[in-house]
Amino acid sequence: MPRRNPNPLQPTTAARLAVSDEPGVAAAIASAVAGAGGRLRSLTTMRRAAARDANGGLGQAELEIEVEGTDETALIDALRPLREIVEIRKTRSMDRVFGKRVIVIGGGAQVTQVALGAVSEADRHNIRGERISVDTIPLVGEESIAAAVRAVIDLPRARLLVLAGSIMGGDISRAADELRAVGIPIIALNMVGSITEHVDLVVSDPVQAGTMAVMAVADTATFELARQRGRRY
Amino acid sequence: MPRRNPNPLQPTTAARLAVSDEPGVAAAIASAVAGAGGRLRSLTTMRRAAARDANGGLGQAELEIEVEGTDETALIDALRPLREIVEIRKTRSMDRVFGKRVIVIGGGAQVTQVALGAVSEADRHNIRGERISVDTIPLVGEESIAAAVRAVIDLPRARLLVLAGSIMGGDISRAADELRAVGIPIIALNMVGSITEHVDLVVSDPVQAGTMAVMAVADTATFELARQRGRRY
Repeated sequence: MPRRNPNPLQPTTAARLAVSDEPGVAAAIASAVAGAGGRLRSLTTMRRAAARDANGGLGQAELEIEVEGTDETALIDALRPLREIVEIRKTRSMDRVFGKRVIVIGGGAQVTQVALGAVSEADRHNIRGERISVDTIPLVGEESIAAAVRAVIDLPRARLLVLAGSIMGGDISRAADELRAVGIPIIALNMVGSITEHVDLVVSDPVQAGTMAVMAVADTATFELARQRGRRY
Repeated sequence: MPRRNPNPLQPTTAARLAVSDEPGVAAAIASAVAGAGGRLRSLTTMRRAAARDANGGLGQAELEIEVEGTDETALIDALRPLREIVEIRKTRSMDRVFGKRVIVIGGGAQVTQVALGAVSEADRHNIRGERISVDTIPLVGEESIAAAVRAVIDLPRARLLVLAGSIMGGDISRAADELRAVGIPIIALNMVGSITEHVDLVVSDPVQAGTMAVMAVADTATFELARQRGRRY
């Protein structure tokens, strides 16, 4: 039984770090964060800047970290003593900038129309203070699409998936079950194949499917996907 | 001077971990990765499953990690001894599933049309083995848009930004300069404001802007943004 956003992560504090690109640097950062009573929720290597090092010294890398359970000042105080860290800059956590993500996967023609509805609807909610982004990838083939559906489980801030195609089933349906089992609901277009039996809602018009997807994740909308479960429009 | 993808990250090995949600767990994982000769390139907390723990025990969290410089077997061998890790599953790194990201930020009406062009073009390249995704957020206001442009610096796998609006300037133009300085190029629609003086390419038709954006990042296209720098279409 899918649950909507069962265990939302706590608000996080973010920092961007320039570090010397040594193997132990992530461990040093994680230890310092833990020492300050925080939990390292994400660490992302943005880029390595080795080519910029004109002195032949050890290359640098740029990291972005998000930490739960500590404030910005405590985080920076904990990181400042580390010799591996060259520079610390405050930044805003992705959650506050790009917010909740509606993911759209499928055939190009359908994905464009779902995106049209979803972006238009997200615009209306973001104007009122929401943060909803619409992230898409056009893909072909059962294997590629099933892998992408499973990967949504690992996408930060993904809140709902729209499957936009003309025929889907087989392993895509199994992947859909796995995704819903971790609490991420799915809207599918009305299409050929078993997928329509493995989603929360089936919608024939792609623009409306995108609109409903955004309404379902928006706190500023009254649409409840749970009440529509199993219906077709 | 913007450089296109100056220091691409190496291919990574990915794993999904269920861990007991202790403060020290990230440090333990990072140390084990470094001990195996790898570099922890990303760590992302997908969700905390505390509510699922019926025995009142310590809650669990699900992490996704991506590691450079070690193969899958060595990575799993290094992680297996850690008592904090409950389960290890292989997964595919996001790079191989969702690939390069074209980011579209701006007003809803313009973003939908840029997305239409970009998704249609990405479809054509992804069919030939590319992996390009098109990620969008409709936003209003100088402050929100400038913050989002700066945040693109920290977005994993972001390769190009399209600014899709009718008027942009001021702090958005400063943010655009910062983004280009780290090597991420920008295409803007032809619009009111100073932004068109702070981007790599100005395009009047939003569908074409989206198409060109995807062509510029696709290895399967021959379009070179560097050759078009400063032009207007």
